[in-house]
Amino acid sequence: MSKFVTIAVDAMGGDLGSAAAVRASLEMLRSRDELRLILVGDADTVRANFGRLGKESARVEIHHADQIVSMEDTPSEALRHKKRSSMRLAVELVRSGEAQACVSAGNTGALMATGRLVLRMLAGIDRPAILVALPTMQGACYMLDLGANSVCTPTHLLQFAVMGSVIAAINGVENPAIRLLNNGEEEIKGIETVQAANVLLSESHLNYHGFVEPNDVFKHRADVVVCDGFTGNIALKTMEGSAEFVYRQMRSYFQTGWFTRAYGLACWPFLYAIKKRLDPNRHNGATLVGLNGIVIKSHGSSNEIGWQQAIHLAMREVEKGLNERIQGLWSNMAA
Amino acid sequence: MSKFVTIAVDAMGGDLGSAAAVRASLEMLRSRDELRLILVGDADTVRANFGRLGKESARVEIHHADQIVSMEDTPSEALRHKKRSSMRLAVELVRSGEAQACVSAGNTGALMATGRLVLRMLAGIDRPAILVALPTMQGACYMLDLGANSVCTPTHLLQFAVMGSVIAAINGVENPAIRLLNNGEEEIKGIETVQAANVLLSESHLNYHGFVEPNDVFKHRADVVVCDGFTGNIALKTMEGSAEFVYRQMRSYFQTGWFTRAYGLACWPFLYAIKKRLDPNRHNGATLVGLNGIVIKSHGSSNEIGWQQAIHLAMREVEKGLNERIQGLWSNMAA
Repeated sequence: MSKFVTIAVDAMGGDLGSAAAVRASLEMLRSRDELRLILVGDADTVRANFGRLGKESARVEIHHADQIVSMEDTPSEALRHKKRSSMRLAVELVRSGEAQACVSAGNTGALMATGRLVLRMLAGIDRPAILVALPTMQGACYMLDLGANSVCTPTHLLQFAVMGSVIAAINGVENPAIRLLNNGEEEIKGIETVQAANVLLSESHLNYHGFVEPNDVFKHRADVVVCDGFTGNIALKTMEGSAEFVYRQMRSYFQTGWFTRAYGLACWPFLYAIKKRLDPNRHNGATLVGLNGIVIKSHGSSNEIGWQQAIHLAMREVEKGLNERIQGLWSNMAA
Repeated sequence: MSKFVTIAVDAMGGDLGSAAAVRASLEMLRSRDELRLILVGDADTVRANFGRLGKESARVEIHHADQIVSMEDTPSEALRHKKRSSMRLAVELVRSGEAQACVSAGNTGALMATGRLVLRMLAGIDRPAILVALPTMQGACYMLDLGANSVCTPTHLLQFAVMGSVIAAINGVENPAIRLLNNGEEEIKGIETVQAANVLLSESHLNYHGFVEPNDVFKHRADVVVCDGFTGNIALKTMEGSAEFVYRQMRSYFQTGWFTRAYGLACWPFLYAIKKRLDPNRHNGATLVGLNGIVIKSHGSSNEIGWQQAIHLAMREVEKGLNERIQGLWSNMAA
């Protein structure tokens, strides 16, 4: 295996167009000598966003794609009619082995469907999941599934626990503590699937600690939090909405009169620091885990910092052998 | 009907003991001449928390109860072994007509179970729900169910929509817009129950507008948001956790060095104002709606302000004839 890590970047997805993706890619090439990038997208557009390229030019290539998956395309439309899209070609570069991972800020549903069709699943894993590292009061919490599967069986949740615990481990968490998201910690709480998954996980050899309530996720009661994709997506979008709501309440305070307006100037550095701390771009990058290939979803609104985070994440998962480790842990459990 | 509104207050529940409940009660008596209160609890304890009573003494009485439902009691333990508890007696005062509503800060599960057993359901309504008025960027959003029923049928969700829309209306919202909480706005999104409820609601004469994602709840995309109790409880606890997380991030910023510590003094009035704005006590009071009697759950950690809010809420629901209006709307729909 070469010392290089090659990442395919879908340079056309995301709300900010290809500029953020391309500029972040070039910045990453400058800071990481072992990185090679294949930028997939309309060749002219991608080239137009290139700045001056130094010696890094040897480690980047453009792979032309004449279609774009839009945010409005349904997964099945993307599969059927966008076979020459930047998203599809980026995923195909992973299947062919030309890239070891791909990153896209496009339509999540289409990316997941494309990943499943092109890469297929890891042996023994039934469903892919969306995993994100959430900030807590004490490091990150790895939470999945955040929206790939609205309905899950207890076995799916067990598989998510395995995958989440491997991702926590490759991010430096020793013997990660796993919990199931629930509306209470007591054994009798929750819906049927969560109850059954609790039994499965308790009987497994995983480092499982029972249920966790959403408010306690932020207190870092667990390193890995497992849930079905419907519940996880509701929780994720509630977090986004709550944080934005609090921030807007803060801003609107300064609009209550001339005194608070003036006072706002004094507090501005603080507000700016908090906004930066909570900036989702600094925690950007969801892993579509369970696929037979590494696929990272960058947030639709990713800026340059967000894109860099996502590419970093893809590199780490390649370097640490994410999928080999998942297969290892899962076959040990099945044995 | 007398011009007085009589509220039974379970003066023993809540984390802060009976002091907050009793003091808030006396304050309310001073500010609302039409209010009568029955304080239910250990007579000595309640009396010990009384301050100087003026002419208000004519409008308050103490109803002795020698048991307390604890936070650890399961609903069935409370029903079986706590028949002389302050919670149980407060609810029974509503059934007998001695009080028109009751307020408790005790164990939610026990209060709901006691309400169902003692008061029974409103005719035609199958399940009670927990409703809270959430703050949004533009007034309140009435959301239910926040935890009474982990599993709901589409018909339950339709009934919740009716009840939520009446509560929004009695709080001054004209023709409230109803939406179903979902993980996406597109018709194909969500789990089976939500899909089926979407059909039921679309066919009803309610002012229904389709799905809403949790992040958009804060943007006031709806006046009433309906969901099953599992999803609603996950969302509610995620909101609480997120807001606390943001607030702690803000505080910890000021602990990063001597300069930020000093700067913290300058920002203190701002932090204090924001904390006050987001104080859950200012939005306190959940309605256990659907019961044949008005029952308000005050937050376990309610302080005096929180208790006052909860008693206010109970009074408003009595004065506006909440349950008569729910029955009216529901029988119109069934007709």
